[in-house]
Amino acid sequence: MNDRITLDYGSGGLKTSELIESLLLPAFDNPALSQLGDGALLEGNKKLVFSTDNFVVSPWRFPGGDIGKLSVCGTVNDVCMAGGIPKYLSLSFILEEGFLFSDLRQIVTSIAEEAKKAGVSIVTGDTKVVDSGKGDGIYINTAGIGFQRVDLPGKAAIRPGDDVIVSGTVGCHGAAVMMARSGLISEESPLRSDCMTLHRISAAALDAAAVNDGAEPGSVRILRDPTRGGVATTLNEFTEGMSFSIELNENEIPVESAVDAACDMLGLDPLYCACEGRMLLVCDPSVTENILNALHTVPGGENAARIGTVTEEMPGKVLLRTPIGGRRILTKLTGIQLPRIC
Amino acid sequence: MNDRITLDYGSGGLKTSELIESLLLPAFDNPALSQLGDGALLEGNKKLVFSTDNFVVSPWRFPGGDIGKLSVCGTVNDVCMAGGIPKYLSLSFILEEGFLFSDLRQIVTSIAEEAKKAGVSIVTGDTKVVDSGKGDGIYINTAGIGFQRVDLPGKAAIRPGDDVIVSGTVGCHGAAVMMARSGLISEESPLRSDCMTLHRISAAALDAAAVNDGAEPGSVRILRDPTRGGVATTLNEFTEGMSFSIELNENEIPVESAVDAACDMLGLDPLYCACEGRMLLVCDPSVTENILNALHTVPGGENAARIGTVTEEMPGKVLLRTPIGGRRILTKLTGIQLPRIC
Repeated sequence: MNDRITLDYGSGGLKTSELIESLLLPAFDNPALSQLGDGALLEGNKKLVFSTDNFVVSPWRFPGGDIGKLSVCGTVNDVCMAGGIPKYLSLSFILEEGFLFSDLRQIVTSIAEEAKKAGVSIVTGDTKVVDSGKGDGIYINTAGIGFQRVDLPGKAAIRPGDDVIVSGTVGCHGAAVMMARSGLISEESPLRSDCMTLHRISAAALDAAAVNDGAEPGSVRILRDPTRGGVATTLNEFTEGMSFSIELNENEIPVESAVDAACDMLGLDPLYCACEGRMLLVCDPSVTENILNALHTVPGGENAARIGTVTEEMPGKVLLRTPIGGRRILTKLTGIQLPRIC
Repeated sequence: MNDRITLDYGSGGLKTSELIESLLLPAFDNPALSQLGDGALLEGNKKLVFSTDNFVVSPWRFPGGDIGKLSVCGTVNDVCMAGGIPKYLSLSFILEEGFLFSDLRQIVTSIAEEAKKAGVSIVTGDTKVVDSGKGDGIYINTAGIGFQRVDLPGKAAIRPGDDVIVSGTVGCHGAAVMMARSGLISEESPLRSDCMTLHRISAAALDAAAVNDGAEPGSVRILRDPTRGGVATTLNEFTEGMSFSIELNENEIPVESAVDAACDMLGLDPLYCACEGRMLLVCDPSVTENILNALHTVPGGENAARIGTVTEEMPGKVLLRTPIGGRRILTKLTGIQLPRIC
């Protein structure tokens, strides 16, 4: 193999086979993939969850992860947030001519490691190569299939009095990528992307809600990972067009000091910075304590907190109560605060 | 909406919502998609077929189709070739800043039309925007889920004496795209991509094989659509590492004269040119006639032909018998005969 990707590797011919057999098959070894058919044959289930994401993050390597890890987490998390147990992933590369093989190998290793952690198999895929100047090194698409674990009622079931929980500190991914892109981050900086798979976090929360004797089914209304647009935009998607509002307590929102410092430097707001390993959850207050206790025992959930409540005060809006007692409206992200963050 | 894509449309914020609600939801309207969850909830099945493809074709519009139509056909066909009935598609765009909205609208319309024809629903998706100069207008990824229709035994079941069938003329897609890219194609040229969904073609062949009283189950060994690398490369994937060879009769391979002429002009071989609406099939000779008769009645299958047989002569090889009685070995495509054809 040469040390750089050439257009041949996307031809569908000999070089494509070589890439598949020398790099991809060994990394993702499983029976469905090794059939090398046009499609993978899989054991199914009555109810499926299906999700997809493109990953175009720049730079592709950032503190706490790389585009490979991100491409597994992003889709696994979407499946989890829709109430599914992730099972299978497809994996597609768009490589730019000239991309280093050593970098591709490293990304493939990240993908394999993260998929193993999440218990998902990479069962089908595709590789295309575009001419130099028509891409940016590497873009990845993953699509994920999960089996439905729970039928979440969704935002229509949210009621005044419900609690809003976040599973950890917010904005780390966006802040880390932007600092890396700006070249401002130092080796010693504690700033790291929160990029991680949420399958344990979401399972812990759903189990905790279910064991509460008093809880009705549907006490967890909705799960969502606040990626592009951050916590503020995701919560706006909950309230949009609805008869309730969400009021956040700025004091209770966990933000790492390194993220605060980075956001100050870059002129960003942590509430609009993408997370790639955090879960937002709205639930009946009767299960809040159980859920928080459960989350605190799961790696990555140590900082889980109730950050706000559902009110009726300004239907359709998300409000932030500041430490000095003021309140401001948080709108959806407008404009390009953070392009190519995932 | 502005007339060009800006980075905002990939931010995950307000503009992304606008794009989804004004363009994508109306085009692909279905209950699973309109939930707008992180993943789509779907009715499943015991056995699934899962496939994915990236589409980076250049130019994105070509005689007989565009990247939108292609992105549905490519994945639908992969699901069909793996023995599945296609049901659901995911759809992801990587748009380059500055891409025209009017072009995106046209592509979305092509996607919606082709999905409707194939009976598949677009249930989940993603849109990313990359900076100008980091893409090439538009790249698309689709992933498809199908329900298993038949358990095809695969290449291990191929035996000497089997027939090789192609469902129509070969190489039209590759030749049409290359002529369009070279600017050599005229308005009046009959050269058109063969881009079409194969769900009717594959169903007709499988039904025809099943009704033959004498046929054992598994009389159809394998289906494959000869995309990148063309018929020659796909047949090499069948013979590779096996104890049989495939011998083609050049006389019997249907090639349109416009494709022959284009290939002469471009220095290409139709047997290495991608098809995007053709099926290769290997079967027990007892079902060949039934299959051909059935294919001839399906639109797009009129030119179906038996193009060769499985022999034991040169294990692992694909041989071409020429009209003057010579024979040559057809290897896998090497090098970049046709970059960015799909």
